[in-house]
Amino acid sequence: MKKPLIFITNDDGVNSLGIKTLIDVAERFGRVIVVAPETSQSGMSHAVTMYNPLYLRTVRKSENVTVYAVSGTPVDCVKMGYDYIFAGERPALNLSGINHGSNSAVSVLYSGTMAAAIEASFYGAPSVGFSLTDHSPDADFEASALFAEKVISDVLRANVKEPLCLNINIPEGRPEDIKGHRVCRQNKGYWKEEFFCRKDPRGKDYFWLTGDFYNSEPDARDTDEWALAHGYISVVPIQVDMTNYRQIDTMKDILG
Amino acid sequence: MKKPLIFITNDDGVNSLGIKTLIDVAERFGRVIVVAPETSQSGMSHAVTMYNPLYLRTVRKSENVTVYAVSGTPVDCVKMGYDYIFAGERPALNLSGINHGSNSAVSVLYSGTMAAAIEASFYGAPSVGFSLTDHSPDADFEASALFAEKVISDVLRANVKEPLCLNINIPEGRPEDIKGHRVCRQNKGYWKEEFFCRKDPRGKDYFWLTGDFYNSEPDARDTDEWALAHGYISVVPIQVDMTNYRQIDTMKDILG
Repeated sequence: MKKPLIFITNDDGVNSLGIKTLIDVAERFGRVIVVAPETSQSGMSHAVTMYNPLYLRTVRKSENVTVYAVSGTPVDCVKMGYDYIFAGERPALNLSGINHGSNSAVSVLYSGTMAAAIEASFYGAPSVGFSLTDHSPDADFEASALFAEKVISDVLRANVKEPLCLNINIPEGRPEDIKGHRVCRQNKGYWKEEFFCRKDPRGKDYFWLTGDFYNSEPDARDTDEWALAHGYISVVPIQVDMTNYRQIDTMKDILG
Repeated sequence: MKKPLIFITNDDGVNSLGIKTLIDVAERFGRVIVVAPETSQSGMSHAVTMYNPLYLRTVRKSENVTVYAVSGTPVDCVKMGYDYIFAGERPALNLSGINHGSNSAVSVLYSGTMAAAIEASFYGAPSVGFSLTDHSPDADFEASALFAEKVISDVLRANVKEPLCLNINIPEGRPEDIKGHRVCRQNKGYWKEEFFCRKDPRGKDYFWLTGDFYNSEPDARDTDEWALAHGYISVVPIQVDMTNYRQIDTMKDILG
């Protein structure tokens, strides 16, 4: 039997430790094609490069793993993979990450990692985005790698027919510290920013954006934030219909 | 009675005709603060500028209208407005647009206009994103302006208490050509890209990303795409919980 083709991307860039970890795990299951950004694209969300050209670079090729880098966003990488590089061949599974930093709750909206997973799922195969709640470049990915191995195995075996996209967040810690996983819903909350103002060498003010997450429902036990705060891996199935169906009748009343 | 404060942003940049049209309409209802990107940010989605500093410029101030420009993304502009410029004062309404180009169906994911509207709605006041299905810089915004006036009036008067965010798309055409509006749901479909390859002056290949939208349900009469294709303005209420609730049990089975 031909080995399945697995597509991998991320938003921290082609040289990050997180994507190297994910490639190492995925290689055990099939052939791997990586198309990842040349540079860090954290916080790039679902951005696409419309008004600049893109460059594509072959980073390395071996029997099992081919790695490309694109001078664009995570979603650009997915589109370049599916609509240019794969040339008809279709991956059996899409993976994104492992992200250095959490993408739970509303962060799914800002996340390049999850945007890439979502975009890849549009092409038909199941997608899984992995994020570790540790931003450091040399984070400990051992627990993440173990869970990624389980998820890849389970999802490939399940052979899900309908569109599937998972947002998986792994709490910091050694494998033995993780209590297990919980399939849950996206937590409600929002990011509030603080702007640090400095003066540039020419005397002009400039600002750094930094934020904190406010959890609107810290006690809701069925959410990803609760799972992570209590030592569990969170697994949220994602869909992209953003319609607020409950408000359709309200708006018909208001607008006549 | 103090006039309501209305916040306006967009993704085409502070100098676009669409935002000027929206400012002209909004001025009739209250004081206006604009915080918009210095440059075109089309396709920037929910991107935030995490690794570069931001510059803020006061473009103009009059009794009723103050306009700022930010060297970042639409979502940066919203955060800069709410978390730095407004200084405690809270808008009664957030407006984004009027975008040069459609943001119906799954384009809501890629759209800077709608990301800004969504982000602004997190701060409490109702948000409305407006888009015209015409990309040209000198598009005819007359029908859009008339409908924006109606929506601003209706939403301010309705005084909605729960979070509200509307994705409004206006078809090209003169006001008398528009058949009315339909409150509807987000259409299912996806963008497929085509990459144009060229050689730069140093002989290296580069690529332009261009895409077409594929409508997966052209006959569904309750969608925004159907409304636009049939001469109606589409109004879709938006929410940000991307959980696929139907798949929670499936995933519990698959992952054990």
